[in-house]
Amino acid sequence: MIVRKLSDAGTQGRTVSADGWESHRLLLKSDGAGFSFHITRIFKDAVLPMHYQNHIESVYCISGFGEIKDVASGAVHSIEPGTIYILDKHDKHILRAFEEMELACVFNPPLIGREVHNAEGAYALTAEAIA
Amino acid sequence: MIVRKLSDAGTQGRTVSADGWESHRLLLKSDGAGFSFHITRIFKDAVLPMHYQNHIESVYCISGFGEIKDVASGAVHSIEPGTIYILDKHDKHILRAFEEMELACVFNPPLIGREVHNAEGAYALTAEAIA
Repeated sequence: MIVRKLSDAGTQGRTVSADGWESHRLLLKSDGAGFSFHITRIFKDAVLPMHYQNHIESVYCISGFGEIKDVASGAVHSIEPGTIYILDKHDKHILRAFEEMELACVFNPPLIGREVHNAEGAYALTAEAIA
Repeated sequence: MIVRKLSDAGTQGRTVSADGWESHRLLLKSDGAGFSFHITRIFKDAVLPMHYQNHIESVYCISGFGEIKDVASGAVHSIEPGTIYILDKHDKHILRAFEEMELACVFNPPLIGREVHNAEGAYALTAEAIA
């Protein structure tokens, strides 16, 4: 059994950030669960084009408000506490935060550690590991 | 892209309950993500012995207070908002809620649908599906 606390993520080196977001990677590939789990904050007014070409991601909104645009269809879906979206087709999307959002994110395959988005909005399948 | 709302789980037939808990299964095997994702409420004063012999589970506490006892070691860990525990060794455990807890649960392999615990506290690998 592994037990961790969100409040320890920073001192454990589990916090990764880039423009508009900060992610606390509480469960990673090295833990052997077959998926990774992160608590991610999307900052107010962030507009993030993303395209997880190598991963399936599910995102559950714990708090905050925003929207997601499905680039292929043009459809826009509101995000509020209790919304989940699943990028089951590696969907190219644009995420917007109207208020800071706290999201529970699950990735398959699991992230390794310090992934940040490449120029295409994807995470590579290799990255610096977090022990 | 799949988008769902927690508030629709009941009318979509995604809510499963038994003594002491209620689970809203927002993402299941049929969605093809390779994991399942549930928002689960553990009711106040529930004491739940469980043993997921067939699954790895991670559990993140969104709200409420409780504790988890690792039966093998006897160790007890407090659960509060921001705590995650991962049953990476199919750990036999007892979950207690001092206040109602809202938990984000991820299972690998993904649940199929209407699983409830068997006499050993496990979920079987077959169950009635939720479409």
